[in-house]
Amino acid sequence: MSLVRVHNFSISLDGFGAGEPQTEDTPMGHAGHRLHEWMTATHAWQHTGGSRGVDNLYTQDTDTGIGAEIMGAGKYGYPGWHDDADWTGWWGSNPPFHTPVFVLTHHPRPPLEMDGGTTFHFIDAAPAEALAAAREAAGDADVRIGGGATVIRDFMAAGLIDYLHAVVVPIVLGHGSRLWDGLEGQEADYQIESICSPSGVTHLTFTRRGL
Amino acid sequence: MSLVRVHNFSISLDGFGAGEPQTEDTPMGHAGHRLHEWMTATHAWQHTGGSRGVDNLYTQDTDTGIGAEIMGAGKYGYPGWHDDADWTGWWGSNPPFHTPVFVLTHHPRPPLEMDGGTTFHFIDAAPAEALAAAREAAGDADVRIGGGATVIRDFMAAGLIDYLHAVVVPIVLGHGSRLWDGLEGQEADYQIESICSPSGVTHLTFTRRGL
Ligand SMILES: NC(=O)c1ccc[n+]([C@@H]2O[C@H](COP(=O)([O-])OP(=O)(O)OC[C@H]3O[C@@H](n4cnc5c(N)ncnc54)[C@H](OP(=O)(O)O)[C@@H]3O)[C@@H](O)[C@H]2O)c1
Ligand SMILES: NC(=O)c1ccc[n+]([C@@H]2O[C@H](COP(=O)([O-])OP(=O)(O)OC[C@H]3O[C@@H](n4cnc5c(N)ncnc54)[C@H](OP(=O)(O)O)[C@@H]3O)[C@@H](O)[C@H]2O)c1
Repeated sequence: MSLVRVHNFSISLDGFGAGEPQTEDTPMGHAGHRLHEWMTATHAWQHTGGSRGVDNLYTQDTDTGIGAEIMGAGKYGYPGWHDDADWTGWWGSNPPFHTPVFVLTHHPRPPLEMDGGTTFHFIDAAPAEALAAAREAAGDADVRIGGGATVIRDFMAAGLIDYLHAVVVPIVLGHGSRLWDGLEGQEADYQIESICSPSGVTHLTFTRRGL
Repeated sequence: MSLVRVHNFSISLDGFGAGEPQTEDTPMGHAGHRLHEWMTATHAWQHTGGSRGVDNLYTQDTDTGIGAEIMGAGKYGYPGWHDDADWTGWWGSNPPFHTPVFVLTHHPRPPLEMDGGTTFHFIDAAPAEALAAAREAAGDADVRIGGGATVIRDFMAAGLIDYLHAVVVPIVLGHGSRLWDGLEGQEADYQIESICSPSGVTHLTFTRRGL
């Protein structure tokens, strides 16, 4: 059975996966780059150079065995992108997904085929329904829930996440898009591990019991 | 210069230091004992037996060099204790503080002298003012801010905390009394360390820069 996985989802101590306001110039709002410095410092991210410690171990696992991604409209574009017919995401002509990507949005548009194997499908669908479509596209491979916090939270609340890797960065953001809201008691279904990295972040993994 | 310290303050992944509702039978609300199991399992807590690992190192440091404590009305008693003339706190006749304890409350009453050196002083005062009184009582020793979350947050927001030891327990409480609210950006003033324990909790320390 293929798994539903979340990787490298970075949050502040107070649980925010992005700051505010999200704009075309500041996609992470007042969080800036702070939530992802641990990741962009790794060898897996930099290819030449970069850290090869435990942060790298987690980062290099992100794409392994993934056959499709589901992401939210807030990850795909800045607020208002759906009024911009030319918007094709943040990632240029060859996005780093190289699989079908299902963008959850209340403003669907026709599929968008990019270079390198990424095709964006825009769907207005409940989590379970979106997952069925992504599973179909992924074949035997796993499905990644790519974020943001709103979408991960919704899939977690629906009991659809098998593996969640969240990375707690020691900053207090105060406001933005929060991961934990509505997830009271979810830990009961998971084995949880916390691994502190010398970089200062804590890797938190939720693995569904019985996997 | 004496320090203002917080020790063993346990919070959920989503930052709650207590659940709801707080009653005489359930002082921690729906959190129950879950936030403190890591601590009550230690040798420092149990005296005979108990774990002697890193959780114990943190726990045994709690009282060292403390000359006074400040706590909130919500730690001192259940909601409504101030209408109960016989209420003397949760801790019996010989409370574990053995110093003056300043209880912040909008319902002051006369000081209460207990066995073993603990005297409760009930004061209605702003954080800086309460700290001045506690420092005076503590002499050269440090002042502990004992919680709950509301009081720690207020002292932190006022820039009065030198050392904060929070313990992140891998549960999602969803509601209750939250530590991080209103503390955006506070990390800038501190050196922060995260130490993961084999027990599953993460010890998070904020140490004021330049100490
Ligand atoms: N911290 C990290 O590691 C990380 C990772 C990825 C992204 N991010 C950041 O997170 C932010 C985005 O997160 P977010 O929580 O604001 O938004 P998000 O989760 O990306 O997207 C939420 C939006 O997707 C649409 N949507 C969600 N579920 C839907 C459904 N079932 N049916 C139809 N549409 C649905 C809705 O938008 P509409 O109503 O507008 O269609 C909703 O407002 C961005 O700043 C991004 O850069 C951070
Ligand atoms: N997680 C942990 O490690 C830990 C540690 C200690 C306690 N706890 C738990 O935390 C809970 C209590 O926390 P909490 O956040 O609800 O409350 P709290 O911080 O203990 O107390 C807040 C209350 O203290 C009074 N107060 C605060 N500042 C004041 C000021 N400047 N002047 C006058 N009065 C002031 C007010 O009560 P009034 O207006 O009613 O006077 C206020 O509602 C309890 O369940 C306790 O068991 C947990």
